[in-house]
Amino acid sequence: MFEFTAQRRVTYGETDKMGYLYYGHYAEYYETGRVEAFRSIGLVYKELEETGIIMPVLELHCNYHKPAFYDDMLSIRTMLPKYPDGVKLYFEYEIRNQEGTLLNTGNSTLIFFNVANRKPVPAAEIMGEKLAPFFT
Amino acid sequence: MFEFTAQRRVTYGETDKMGYLYYGHYAEYYETGRVEAFRSIGLVYKELEETGIIMPVLELHCNYHKPAFYDDMLSIRTMLPKYPDGVKLYFEYEIRNQEGTLLNTGNSTLIFFNVANRKPVPAAEIMGEKLAPFFT
Amino acid sequence: MFEFTAQRRVTYGETDKMGYLYYGHYAEYYETGRVEAFRSIGLVYKELEETGIIMPVLELHCNYHKPAFYDDMLSIRTMLPKYPDGVKLYFEYEIRNQEGTLLNTGNSTLIFFNVANRKPVPAAEIMGEKLAPFFT
Amino acid sequence: MFEFTAQRRVTYGETDKMGYLYYGHYAEYYETGRVEAFRSIGLVYKELEETGIIMPVLELHCNYHKPAFYDDMLSIRTMLPKYPDGVKLYFEYEIRNQEGTLLNTGNSTLIFFNVANRKPVPAAEIMGEKLAPFFT
Repeated sequence: MFEFTAQRRVTYGETDKMGYLYYGHYAEYYETGRVEAFRSIGLVYKELEETGIIMPVLELHCNYHKPAFYDDMLSIRTMLPKYPDGVKLYFEYEIRNQEGTLLNTGNSTLIFFNVANRKPVPAAEIMGEKLAPFFT
Repeated sequence: MFEFTAQRRVTYGETDKMGYLYYGHYAEYYETGRVEAFRSIGLVYKELEETGIIMPVLELHCNYHKPAFYDDMLSIRTMLPKYPDGVKLYFEYEIRNQEGTLLNTGNSTLIFFNVANRKPVPAAEIMGEKLAPFFT
Repeated sequence: MFEFTAQRRVTYGETDKMGYLYYGHYAEYYETGRVEAFRSIGLVYKELEETGIIMPVLELHCNYHKPAFYDDMLSIRTMLPKYPDGVKLYFEYEIRNQEGTLLNTGNSTLIFFNVANRKPVPAAEIMGEKLAPFFT
Repeated sequence: MFEFTAQRRVTYGETDKMGYLYYGHYAEYYETGRVEAFRSIGLVYKELEETGIIMPVLELHCNYHKPAFYDDMLSIRTMLPKYPDGVKLYFEYEIRNQEGTLLNTGNSTLIFFNVANRKPVPAAEIMGEKLAPFFT
C-alpha cells in the first residue's frame, strides 16, 4: 500500500454557523491529501497537467463521524490500497484532528485523461514507476 | 415519493482551471436542493434551527457523469424516496444542465439533532405531517 | 447611470461560525451582481469569454456595515455610474437584505483583456452600444 | 511595525476557469495571514473567541497586480504599521509567489467586539502587551 499524511488547518471561512468545518469542504481536504501524496513521490500534479493529462473525479464518498472545528490542524491520511491496474485510481482517506480522533473517512475514484485525444490513460503509465516500490 | 427541483447557476468562482464546476461544490448544490425542497412544503430550515434542531450530514455520495460548466443553469432534483421511519433522513439528487443532460447523481444521509439534550430526533416528529401527503 | 438589481440567497456553506455570511464571500455576490447586470442588457459574460475576451479584476473595495445571515435573500444593486471612456470598468455595489437594510457597499475595477494579443480592449468597444441608451 | 509572513498553497478548487486564483479568495489568504501573525506572538484567535471576543471585518481593500496560479506557494506578509490606539485594527498585506513576484496588496480594518455587552473593545486591551515590544 502507498500512503501519505498531509496537514491542513481549518480556516474561519470554512466553518459554518454550527461552528463545524462545512461538510462540503472535505472534498477540498481530500484534494490536498491526494496532491501532497503525489508530491511525496515526485509527482507534481501541476506538471502532469502541463503535459496534457487531467484527472477528473468520477466518484466521491464521505462519512462524517465527528465534526472538525475552527483552527483544528487536521491530518489527512491518503491511501492507495492497491496498485492501479486500469485507467481508474482509487484513493481512501482518513481525517483526524490534533488529538488523533478520527473525524472523517472517505474515498474517491479518479481517472487520468489525455486532453489531446480525449481518451483515458492507464494509471500505471503515468505513475507506475513511482508507485512500484510501495507494492512489492 | 417526495421530490422537488431547484435551480442554481454555476458562478465563475465555482469553476476550476479545467473550466468545470469544481467537484467539491456539488455538496453545496445538494444543500440548495435539500433546503428548497423543504421550503416547498413549508419547512424553513433556518426556522427549524432557531428551535434548537440542527441537521448534520452523516454521509455523502457523489457520482460525476459529465462536467458542468460556467454559467450553466443547473436543475437539482431532490428526492426523498421513502417516508422517514427513524432518526435518519435519506435524500437522492440528480443534477441536469439546461439541455436536460444528466451530469451528476448522488445521495446524502442526515440526522435531526436536538442541540439542548444532544439527542437525535425522529424525522417524522419534525416533518411527518408535511411529508405524509406525498407517501399515501 | 446603468444599474441592475440581482437576488442571491445566503447558503449554509457560506456562513461562518459567527453565523454571518463570511466576509470573503461578498466578492462572489459582486460577481453575481455584475454578471446579471450584463445579462440584463444582452451581454452574456460566458459568450464574451468565448470570443477571447477575459475580464480580470484589478481592484476591490468592500465596506461591511451590518452582517448578512443564513437564508437571507440579498439584493445586489450593481451600478455603472459613468459611461466607460477607457479600458477600465468601474462598478459600485449595494447589498441589502429582505427588510431593505443596507448591509454592504463596495466597488470594483475590471478590465477587458484580449487573450490573443494580451492587450486591454476599450470597454466601449465591447459594450458601448448596449450601454449608450443609459447614458443619454 | 509588527509583521509576519505566512505560507499558503493555491489549491485546485481555488482556481477559476482563467486558471487564476479566483479574486474572491484573497480575503481568505488575508485571514490566514492575520491569524498566523497573531499566533506568532502567542495570540490564538480561537482562544480569544472562546473568551467572548469576536473580530468582524469592517473594511477590505484588494489590489490585484498579477495572477496567482494553481499550486503556487504564496507568501502572505501581514503588517500592523502602527500600534492600535482605538477600537479598530488596521492590517496591510503583500502576497508574493515562490519567485518573489508581488501579486497582490491589500488592507483590512477589523474591530474587537465583546459578544456579551455588544460593545467594541480597545485593541490595546486585547493585544497591547504582546504588541508593545514591536513598537518601541
